[in-house]
Amino acid sequence: MTLSRETRGVYAIAPTPFTADGGLDLASVDRMVEFYTAAGVTGLTILGQLGEAPKLDHDEALAVVERVVTRAPFPVVVGVSAPGFASMRSLSASAMDLGAAGVMIAPPSTLRTDDQIVNYYAGAAAAIGAGTPFVIQDYPLTFGVVMTPEVIRRIAVDNPNCVMLKHEDWPGLEKISALRAFEAEDRMPRLSVLCGNGGLFLDFETERGADGAMTGYCFPEMLVDVVSMAAAGRRDEAHDLFDAHLPLLRYEQQPGLGLAVRKYVLAQRGVLTTATQRTPASRLSPAAIAEVDYLLRRLARHDDRAKLD
Amino acid sequence: MTLSRETRGVYAIAPTPFTADGGLDLASVDRMVEFYTAAGVTGLTILGQLGEAPKLDHDEALAVVERVVTRAPFPVVVGVSAPGFASMRSLSASAMDLGAAGVMIAPPSTLRTDDQIVNYYAGAAAAIGAGTPFVIQDYPLTFGVVMTPEVIRRIAVDNPNCVMLKHEDWPGLEKISALRAFEAEDRMPRLSVLCGNGGLFLDFETERGADGAMTGYCFPEMLVDVVSMAAAGRRDEAHDLFDAHLPLLRYEQQPGLGLAVRKYVLAQRGVLTTATQRTPASRLSPAAIAEVDYLLRRLARHDDRAKLD
Amino acid sequence: MTLSRETRGVYAIAPTPFTADGGLDLASVDRMVEFYTAAGVTGLTILGQLGEAPKLDHDEALAVVERVVTRAPFPVVVGVSAPGFASMRSLSASAMDLGAAGVMIAPPSTLRTDDQIVNYYAGAAAAIGAGTPFVIQDYPLTFGVVMTPEVIRRIAVDNPNCVMLKHEDWPGLEKISALRAFEAEDRMPRLSVLCGNGGLFLDFETERGADGAMTGYCFPEMLVDVVSMAAAGRRDEAHDLFDAHLPLLRYEQQPGLGLAVRKYVLAQRGVLTTATQRTPASRLSPAAIAEVDYLLRRLARHDDRAKLD
Amino acid sequence: MTLSRETRGVYAIAPTPFTADGGLDLASVDRMVEFYTAAGVTGLTILGQLGEAPKLDHDEALAVVERVVTRAPFPVVVGVSAPGFASMRSLSASAMDLGAAGVMIAPPSTLRTDDQIVNYYAGAAAAIGAGTPFVIQDYPLTFGVVMTPEVIRRIAVDNPNCVMLKHEDWPGLEKISALRAFEAEDRMPRLSVLCGNGGLFLDFETERGADGAMTGYCFPEMLVDVVSMAAAGRRDEAHDLFDAHLPLLRYEQQPGLGLAVRKYVLAQRGVLTTATQRTPASRLSPAAIAEVDYLLRRLARHDDRAKLD
Repeated sequence: MTLSRETRGVYAIAPTPFTADGGLDLASVDRMVEFYTAAGVTGLTILGQLGEAPKLDHDEALAVVERVVTRAPFPVVVGVSAPGFASMRSLSASAMDLGAAGVMIAPPSTLRTDDQIVNYYAGAAAAIGAGTPFVIQDYPLTFGVVMTPEVIRRIAVDNPNCVMLKHEDWPGLEKISALRAFEAEDRMPRLSVLCGNGGLFLDFETERGADGAMTGYCFPEMLVDVVSMAAAGRRDEAHDLFDAHLPLLRYEQQPGLGLAVRKYVLAQRGVLTTATQRTPASRLSPAAIAEVDYLLRRLARHDDRAKLD
Repeated sequence: MTLSRETRGVYAIAPTPFTADGGLDLASVDRMVEFYTAAGVTGLTILGQLGEAPKLDHDEALAVVERVVTRAPFPVVVGVSAPGFASMRSLSASAMDLGAAGVMIAPPSTLRTDDQIVNYYAGAAAAIGAGTPFVIQDYPLTFGVVMTPEVIRRIAVDNPNCVMLKHEDWPGLEKISALRAFEAEDRMPRLSVLCGNGGLFLDFETERGADGAMTGYCFPEMLVDVVSMAAAGRRDEAHDLFDAHLPLLRYEQQPGLGLAVRKYVLAQRGVLTTATQRTPASRLSPAAIAEVDYLLRRLARHDDRAKLD
Repeated sequence: MTLSRETRGVYAIAPTPFTADGGLDLASVDRMVEFYTAAGVTGLTILGQLGEAPKLDHDEALAVVERVVTRAPFPVVVGVSAPGFASMRSLSASAMDLGAAGVMIAPPSTLRTDDQIVNYYAGAAAAIGAGTPFVIQDYPLTFGVVMTPEVIRRIAVDNPNCVMLKHEDWPGLEKISALRAFEAEDRMPRLSVLCGNGGLFLDFETERGADGAMTGYCFPEMLVDVVSMAAAGRRDEAHDLFDAHLPLLRYEQQPGLGLAVRKYVLAQRGVLTTATQRTPASRLSPAAIAEVDYLLRRLARHDDRAKLD
Repeated sequence: MTLSRETRGVYAIAPTPFTADGGLDLASVDRMVEFYTAAGVTGLTILGQLGEAPKLDHDEALAVVERVVTRAPFPVVVGVSAPGFASMRSLSASAMDLGAAGVMIAPPSTLRTDDQIVNYYAGAAAAIGAGTPFVIQDYPLTFGVVMTPEVIRRIAVDNPNCVMLKHEDWPGLEKISALRAFEAEDRMPRLSVLCGNGGLFLDFETERGADGAMTGYCFPEMLVDVVSMAAAGRRDEAHDLFDAHLPLLRYEQQPGLGLAVRKYVLAQRGVLTTATQRTPASRLSPAAIAEVDYLLRRLARHDDRAKLD
């Protein structure tokens, strides 16, 4: 199972479960894999931004990779963004050895010009090796690096192991259209485009040509349904379901706070034993917890899966 | 009519109407004032970020202020953010002379430390003069300046003419709670808190203690209704109405693109003669226009005011 | 006298003189013009970053332009960077009407991608009009906008009224070499390249192909001498003079503090009546003043012009 | 040998030597330690920004620490800045076990407010443990994080294991004076203040109360001499020596390019076998090499140690 340019569907971004005292919670990892399997996801992405990757040391990171890859019946992408190519190479090699399907690489926030970005990905692609497929993470809101469609085209043309775009530019709909137009004109090889940014525009992104989602919304079932309804041309139905989740999805997408919401709901849903984050952690105030509970109750009127008792 | 610490309700952020060839469109200004009056807003804010203020020269800016202030039956806040205190002083004085109720000041993006921010507002407050009430615009997503509740407290304590906060931090709910707690402990004077950021969290912001909204969503009637329902304790009703608008509101809130959506809808609603922006302008592609039209049709099922034919 | 692609020499960046109470000090403006004339500069640049341009209102800015242009026996460049094209157009038109030789335009700090920068200058060039020659200000340290040689090439090719580069990238020597190579290959029209960044690398910049300096060091005589010695092939002599000034030049080049040093020395030299800055102002502590005095005494051992009594 | 609040002198920032094919060059490490010992430094700092730390994987980083600590007759500080506290904790523990004297911690570039910075260092101090002394690296030019003297004071008060400041703010002289004033008023414990930023202001920093230098200039002998002359009150002599080196020091201090200059000169001086950097690497053009050679020849007229043949 390696990552492909033709991948369609939903790669869930999985959080890293911790026990109440901050240790790795491998029992929750197992339950999480079962949960995502039942939700119908196509694959899983671990050790991304929201996987608290920087809070794991080297051995812990590999322990998580091994556990997930061993249990998962689907491909697993591993985030290997690192301050330098040496750590990236070493983490990527270990992850692929353990059975990962590919790796995801975010740009360092110091990149500015088009050439700097293109050169960075050339260096990264070389560091991980031609046999390792990789995903570009295009997330200007968090990384401060702005990639034009042309820059993504150059990266895709230069590096045959670039097979997927985690699209989370904002606004980003025109970018999807532009990339698909480049492909139609044979100016670049096809990329699988999975959308992140919390899923906030997934309803229209699928209509613009995205292949699905790669994000961590706490109801992955909704992402799976919306992507498959959209693929089946059931437009209104897809929007109806999406809109029912939008108030909670929007709440979860708050920068910094989102992971706390996500872990809280996944704990409420019985997936995680605790919502613990390692420091530095965002925490939900009692008022915020009450707001999430209220949103869950409102959602449950439209989607039975949100009934938590 | 001057701005007050007790202000509650909705200050609409008004766009600046242009004719198809880029001239000021004063006829649309008049229609816009009537439209906002009918929508029940408490006041109007002009020459903000989304008012394309930097694209007006000095004389044009004053022409807009004069026209709006003359016609409006409610208080008008004028954005006077400027690269230096001299232009800020001069624009502020002119606006107040013309009858503005107060001014709004955003921080320059170079500010970093707490003291730099506090000192900047001290300088700005002095520049506009003690008799001119002002609004702090707290919008880190756009300006890159992060103000803690403590910094806002210090600004409010130091400058008696600081009467209002345009709250658009993200996430921002805890900030409202923190400021209201400071006030309850008598550690700072009351500020009117009106929420921006496109209204994306208005449903909960009112519940946390915000006094209303200051934002430019293309259906100000919804903002007015949600704020008044929330004030009346009609919680579920407020959320129901808010949620019906959320898909469009979210679409409108895209950075850079939002103004194009807003002007397009206001033109569709008959308020603006054209959706023209001055350069540099964001433009809606045919696909984007079709998406907005689709969202409007879906909204119209819940809210008659979105029926545009 | 309009600005030319062939300009060689030194354009001094002039400060804006204020009286002790913060008013415009036109008497000092006159003395300053005489001083720069005696120093042998080729031209003058006013209303730049270090000219405290944002602290002047519209009328004051024009008053300064008029006074300088009227008195100066050499071309005058006027900084017209503005948050929007409308103010840029209006300030540029007024400056050219008053007799300016050209205008200087810095990029807004929000620009990121190559295309964004190229498009911005296309818009600016259109706003000021084809008849107004302009200078690109390439100063990433202050503006956060990084222009590759290729981006500068595209701007120069696209806009015939782009005639000069104020080069203050850091490091920047290879950029000069790259641009001169483009010109040699006929890939772009010649640009006059005058170097800023306080003059910190002027000794080598001239050797790489720069045409001179555009900076505000408090001994413009040194800049003039170094540029002419370098042009005459008197390499060691140029470096000897430059090195003698380097300790003070380095002190003056401190971001934020530099203008205070410059105004202090120009006041000591009898050019400015006071070293006053408008707020927000950087101020020299007694310790800093003692340091500058010490540097001046040390400099005077090598350069008589630094003997201030 | 652990790091102390009373440390005075010069901690050289050591580069990481690589062989021509990019492998660790431990023979050069040994020669480098001898070189710094002969130069009279007080200590050594390894795995900092200019030590290409992010280009080493975990095992390589520890191999460098072990080799240097084993050979060095003086204390060694190890850079442990990391994207998360887990890697920081693990690298710090390993380094201290191997005999390091303390660790150095730079702030992540996402920090903005005073509280965020203070909280980050509280988390870091806890992660490395109370028994591990640490150095704050205050380098806004590179990290984009601005720490006021008050913020540094709070960090020093809150964390007894904070013993040293690597001061490289720019401008920064007043910051040294402010911190020494806080100490004199008993508002904070004494910090050892060693100055970085390439040494560009070392001449005055020592006079303001700095205890010495922590920087990597390719003639550490000059840093040692200037610090000891300043301590002995031989002011003019200190400045004379400093000024003789300033043209080269300024050339070496260019962001990005500086490491290439430093490794080139250290290779010329016979310390490193090659000037190789791992990718991404800055490279000296033939023109740049000729410029450095010219600066070395000019320096050799004043300082015999720069005679390289």
